[in-house]
Amino acid sequence: MLPIRKTAKQGKRGILERLDAGEIVIGDGGFVFALEKRGYVKAGPWTPEATVEHPEAVRQLHREFLRAGSSVLQTFTFYASEDKLENRGNYVAEKISCQKVNEAACDIAREVANEGDALVAGGVSQTPSYLSCKDKTEVKAAFQKQLEVFVKKNVDFLIAEYFEHVEEAVWAVEVLKESGKPVAATMCIGPEGDMHGVSPGQCAVQLVKAGASIVGVNCHFDPETSIETVRLMKEGLQAAKLKAHLMCQPLAFHTPDCGKQGFIDLPEFPFGLEPRIATRWDIQKYARKAYDLGIRFIGGCCGFEPYHIRAIAEELAPERGFLPEASEKHGSWGDNLSMHTKPWVRARARKEYWENLKPASGRPYCPGMSKPDGWGVTKGAKELMQQKEATTEQQLKELFHKKKF
Amino acid sequence: MLPIRKTAKQGKRGILERLDAGEIVIGDGGFVFALEKRGYVKAGPWTPEATVEHPEAVRQLHREFLRAGSSVLQTFTFYASEDKLENRGNYVAEKISCQKVNEAACDIAREVANEGDALVAGGVSQTPSYLSCKDKTEVKAAFQKQLEVFVKKNVDFLIAEYFEHVEEAVWAVEVLKESGKPVAATMCIGPEGDMHGVSPGQCAVQLVKAGASIVGVNCHFDPETSIETVRLMKEGLQAAKLKAHLMCQPLAFHTPDCGKQGFIDLPEFPFGLEPRIATRWDIQKYARKAYDLGIRFIGGCCGFEPYHIRAIAEELAPERGFLPEASEKHGSWGDNLSMHTKPWVRARARKEYWENLKPASGRPYCPGMSKPDGWGVTKGAKELMQQKEATTEQQLKELFHKKKF
Amino acid sequence: MLPIRKTAKQGKRGILERLDAGEIVIGDGGFVFALEKRGYVKAGPWTPEATVEHPEAVRQLHREFLRAGSSVLQTFTFYASEDKLENRGNYVAEKISCQKVNEAACDIAREVANEGDALVAGGVSQTPSYLSCKDKTEVKAAFQKQLEVFVKKNVDFLIAEYFEHVEEAVWAVEVLKESGKPVAATMCIGPEGDMHGVSPGQCAVQLVKAGASIVGVNCHFDPETSIETVRLMKEGLQAAKLKAHLMCQPLAFHTPDCGKQGFIDLPEFPFGLEPRIATRWDIQKYARKAYDLGIRFIGGCCGFEPYHIRAIAEELAPERGFLPEASEKHGSWGDNLSMHTKPWVRARARKEYWENLKPASGRPYCPGMSKPDGWGVTKGAKELMQQKEATTEQQLKELFHKKKF
Amino acid sequence: MLPIRKTAKQGKRGILERLDAGEIVIGDGGFVFALEKRGYVKAGPWTPEATVEHPEAVRQLHREFLRAGSSVLQTFTFYASEDKLENRGNYVAEKISCQKVNEAACDIAREVANEGDALVAGGVSQTPSYLSCKDKTEVKAAFQKQLEVFVKKNVDFLIAEYFEHVEEAVWAVEVLKESGKPVAATMCIGPEGDMHGVSPGQCAVQLVKAGASIVGVNCHFDPETSIETVRLMKEGLQAAKLKAHLMCQPLAFHTPDCGKQGFIDLPEFPFGLEPRIATRWDIQKYARKAYDLGIRFIGGCCGFEPYHIRAIAEELAPERGFLPEASEKHGSWGDNLSMHTKPWVRARARKEYWENLKPASGRPYCPGMSKPDGWGVTKGAKELMQQKEATTEQQLKELFHKKKF
Repeated sequence: MLPIRKTAKQGKRGILERLDAGEIVIGDGGFVFALEKRGYVKAGPWTPEATVEHPEAVRQLHREFLRAGSSVLQTFTFYASEDKLENRGNYVAEKISCQKVNEAACDIAREVANEGDALVAGGVSQTPSYLSCKDKTEVKAAFQKQLEVFVKKNVDFLIAEYFEHVEEAVWAVEVLKESGKPVAATMCIGPEGDMHGVSPGQCAVQLVKAGASIVGVNCHFDPETSIETVRLMKEGLQAAKLKAHLMCQPLAFHTPDCGKQGFIDLPEFPFGLEPRIATRWDIQKYARKAYDLGIRFIGGCCGFEPYHIRAIAEELAPERGFLPEASEKHGSWGDNLSMHTKPWVRARARKEYWENLKPASGRPYCPGMSKPDGWGVTKGAKELMQQKEATTEQQLKELFHKKKF
Repeated sequence: MLPIRKTAKQGKRGILERLDAGEIVIGDGGFVFALEKRGYVKAGPWTPEATVEHPEAVRQLHREFLRAGSSVLQTFTFYASEDKLENRGNYVAEKISCQKVNEAACDIAREVANEGDALVAGGVSQTPSYLSCKDKTEVKAAFQKQLEVFVKKNVDFLIAEYFEHVEEAVWAVEVLKESGKPVAATMCIGPEGDMHGVSPGQCAVQLVKAGASIVGVNCHFDPETSIETVRLMKEGLQAAKLKAHLMCQPLAFHTPDCGKQGFIDLPEFPFGLEPRIATRWDIQKYARKAYDLGIRFIGGCCGFEPYHIRAIAEELAPERGFLPEASEKHGSWGDNLSMHTKPWVRARARKEYWENLKPASGRPYCPGMSKPDGWGVTKGAKELMQQKEATTEQQLKELFHKKKF
Repeated sequence: MLPIRKTAKQGKRGILERLDAGEIVIGDGGFVFALEKRGYVKAGPWTPEATVEHPEAVRQLHREFLRAGSSVLQTFTFYASEDKLENRGNYVAEKISCQKVNEAACDIAREVANEGDALVAGGVSQTPSYLSCKDKTEVKAAFQKQLEVFVKKNVDFLIAEYFEHVEEAVWAVEVLKESGKPVAATMCIGPEGDMHGVSPGQCAVQLVKAGASIVGVNCHFDPETSIETVRLMKEGLQAAKLKAHLMCQPLAFHTPDCGKQGFIDLPEFPFGLEPRIATRWDIQKYARKAYDLGIRFIGGCCGFEPYHIRAIAEELAPERGFLPEASEKHGSWGDNLSMHTKPWVRARARKEYWENLKPASGRPYCPGMSKPDGWGVTKGAKELMQQKEATTEQQLKELFHKKKF
Repeated sequence: MLPIRKTAKQGKRGILERLDAGEIVIGDGGFVFALEKRGYVKAGPWTPEATVEHPEAVRQLHREFLRAGSSVLQTFTFYASEDKLENRGNYVAEKISCQKVNEAACDIAREVANEGDALVAGGVSQTPSYLSCKDKTEVKAAFQKQLEVFVKKNVDFLIAEYFEHVEEAVWAVEVLKESGKPVAATMCIGPEGDMHGVSPGQCAVQLVKAGASIVGVNCHFDPETSIETVRLMKEGLQAAKLKAHLMCQPLAFHTPDCGKQGFIDLPEFPFGLEPRIATRWDIQKYARKAYDLGIRFIGGCCGFEPYHIRAIAEELAPERGFLPEASEKHGSWGDNLSMHTKPWVRARARKEYWENLKPASGRPYCPGMSKPDGWGVTKGAKELMQQKEATTEQQLKELFHKKKF
């Protein structure tokens, strides 16, 4: 068995040093979904005021991801731009300022990262300002404001993540680059590309040209679909003779049936997704496939719990040479079942068993797939797009309200 | 909207005072499954050494359940009898004694309970000694040892839970009764009764006669099946003109397809159960049904996460007159989606939507149900039973080893 | 390989001679469903005027069943009582009298039976008169009228089939017995018994006491459920120390999810049942199970096509000593695939393959089971029954209309 | 309600006159699958010797399709080329010559066609000679031999159908064209094109250039996939500025999960396809979609029973101005259920009900989709193709045998 590596302060090497050296970097999992289930985040707004309200809960989740093998802890600053927090104002206690939330997020992440060999990444994501058609200056100002906190708190690198439009992602990268820190950029798109119809390959090219050293996807689609999208990004970069590290942080939900906009349009979003949750074995397969494609920054997004991150670390333990701390409490491929009192449960202590299991849902009245809602399938919307009256979601929305289709 | 009741130290009333007054008592969720996913418990042994190794992780989970509405915090002492811990010795750090684990569990539970209006319950469960046919004295001695810690740490009441054989459960109740504290007793059985063929009604009668004030079921079966079992217990008590409070702490997994021994025999146990996880809406239905049957101690077991417990508290908020603290971060029946930017997601902000949703699994290659493994379906075992050579599981096991079928 | 027995006129032995000698008697399949799909019967009325309108179509179906191995050809006289035909009058060409339909049915069945070693059975089934609460005399008169045709046409024996109420079935048997011919009686009930709550065991006892030599079930439930019902009938007869031959003619649809009244209440009835159609392998399993229980009159009802009947004959060929004529065109357990050009299809030419196949539906948006409509699940109806206001469907219907639940 | 048009000899107009006039031509259904279930065709060989052995069975099936609305009766000459019949020699009674089978097929089809307003089409399909790499002359000779019978028996037009390679289909069209009769040509391909990788659009272009007046697809894929393939053919023809009528005769099985070679590779082929059978409502949707795409020759292939053909005729009755004869026994969209005795079944007598029904399979242990076997998914095969060692199935097969992957 491979050694379990106790977390320990090493002379820290930065994200690019690690990736350039060919190391596998394991990301963390999904904070908003995990903390929603633990009672600290409200679905809908999905804002991170828990960093101030309940730091112990945020700290504990960071610790679990660290233990599970994460080499990067992302500050819990999702949707923490000022415009977003204001927008959702009624959900956030009045006295909690945007700055306070972001600063607390940095402090907590750093505290836990220092317990082990992890890096802290500060993150920004798409803004209401962009969606409501504010101009470049205004949108960039929002990112700038968040960046100031990350610089003050000296995070190790920056991630622009969860962008549906590459144009906004490019603006974010441009702002983050000014800090001099390495920048990663991931979009929440599938193989069909961004919401303006820019292909994954083109998205990757634009992001790298804007200064991103690492590109990929996060959220919105399941592991299999996300890997396919990164494959298209890789091809786009190769065709453009550009170089960048690849990154993938998908959902831990099976979404073979979702449309262009991903899991939000599925009828089960966000409160009926349970039957879609990936098993640890699904995630081991994902980790292997991602690795085989050349992705070296491998993590997760919504739905990823600590045991999913551990599954990545266990699958890639042979390549990394060690197991994560949490593997103290986990036998590889279920081998800890070999001591079970029931012989037929003991028979499950092997890779072939779990690798081939087709798990039943226990829900015989429920189907295997659903039809997504939304623009993607609204007849009126499709017609409008075909008529070229609208090419962006924003335009569609406007038409939607005018025409009431 | 009902008020959210901030947890606050009240003049504490005991479990029986509350139940006798007709109050609803909400239990907590499943520690071993939740902490396994967080990286602190090993599946297979399922032992609770984390109380010593990682008290912050155990404390955090208690806190989440408290926030979600639990009126009772159970000490994390599952399978913490000395014989069990020894049995699983290789998994437990040598220096951690059984007593230390149990004492730490009591201290953590009490610390968190004191942050709110919760009671602490000390728990014992079935022992390897019984299963390996040790005699009554020896089995009782194991319970006695655990009880000493509970008395020393002055828990508020005691629960004998997770028993497959009513005989052993009765012995446990007899031991716990000696403390003078109120005793609850739950069996991990379904409508077919215990592993010796004693019906749920008879089990309930024996437990009450032995001194239990509260009886019911926990673990092994889904909410629907568990309520059916408690219904049979209730009928048994009525027929015997006995009185007791009813309690139910089922799985948060759908298991319509499992056999007499419950979810352990399902091929998905324990690492492929994800598609079976109950939604919050499934749990609201469970809470209502349990309440309608007259059950007043309503909680969960394996698979119950904090948000499942909150679902019980929200469903029964009209009866209780208040919402739990974690409802600050949760709109009733998804009403927090009403502010979502996408109109088709806003359309999900209503009870009818979530109540009627038949969630897809996103796994079109997987079935709705599976066939359980185990004695129930082993041809050799069936034949033996038909030949009347064996009528109990114990006898079957012996024959199994002799005949190697 | 067993010989294929060419049909040939033998000195005919009657149904009881055959059964008394321990022979397996194979029934035929479902006429109304098969002829509905072929375009000759209207779903809803399900009346058999095709015997006069399109005799060639009825004759061809009889021939296919004979070829497939049927030892009994039932006259196509389902729902051909005068009151039923009148009731459905608008669907039946005016000039076609009840008598004409019944006589033609007898002639066609006899013509084809004479091409082989088959017996002709005349059948009566439940009447609108009974359901609308006509008295015993009136109901018996309807059966008497049909019987006259069967006597005139000299069928070999009689079957009273498709009764939901044992009371009416007993009346039918009493009428049929007067002819001096052997009488079989089957009810379209499941393990819960008839619509008045009479158990299968009691139904069997009453039918045998009334004079039936053969008892069992037909229609309304799938093979597995039907065998379970016959098992209960068998136990009832044993307890009453009565002797009779057992008979089973179930649906060729999977209906694990239907309620007390069977497949009619399923949402798919009658035009969406396709995904439930049994494979030939399902039917071979049924034939074996039926045989093992001691059933010797084994056939089918709605959904049974000729290839399903052949599956019975092939499964029981070792016991019977020969294969049916249609096996000229069928290799046992798919062995005719061994010559396929594609190697992976050749690999399917074996029993283990087909026996273990879990066939996919190709319908990932559809569930495995549905909830039946109807009285069985109507809350109001259940409450009424619990309140003992209504114990029969008729009473329920009246209440239904009064109370509009 | 639209009138039911009794079949009646009209001054016959040919297939092209009808199509050129914009009429909808309805094809017939699948003979080999229907007659296999009736006991007259052997799965595997799928040869049509029943035309000689059991002409009454073939005649009856033709009649049912005619009644259901077919305007074209195809001679039952599938796989009736001499090389195929020889190849399968052991299944065919020795004295039945290829010529006799083909002639009998023509006579039966003509006899029934003359009972109504139908045309007779003679058909040829792919040959073992081509698959075993015989040259063009030899392959054409096989078609020539079949054509002689069709000319002698004076069929109304010719169909080259069920070709996996457009090269062979072109040869067939070239031979058939020599007769001077109109020629239709359909391939059994999906959107990925033929087995040599020729796209549907290119296939259509080649077939039209070879002389086909009607082009399209038959067999191998479900209606939805087949319509998609015809759409690609239509686009190919438009791009090449060629004109031809479009034709579609798909499976009546749902096959969303099959690979490039269609349903043969599905694990359920051919004896476990029941759960995939299309309902009549599925077929009505297919007929409408086909019509909307501009397809005017609309029929079916394997799995299509008479009631499926009737569903096409009923869906397109408004366009055609009349209903088929078999609609005497069928209410549009289930309206004949309006007289059912049970109110909840009466509630099903409406279009919205059947249109929206998601029919359950009654098979909770079975999945929604399966993984196809075969070249398409064999790892070794894929690698070989990637290595460019093999680009055709034939080459793959050869490598397969050499390398035993």
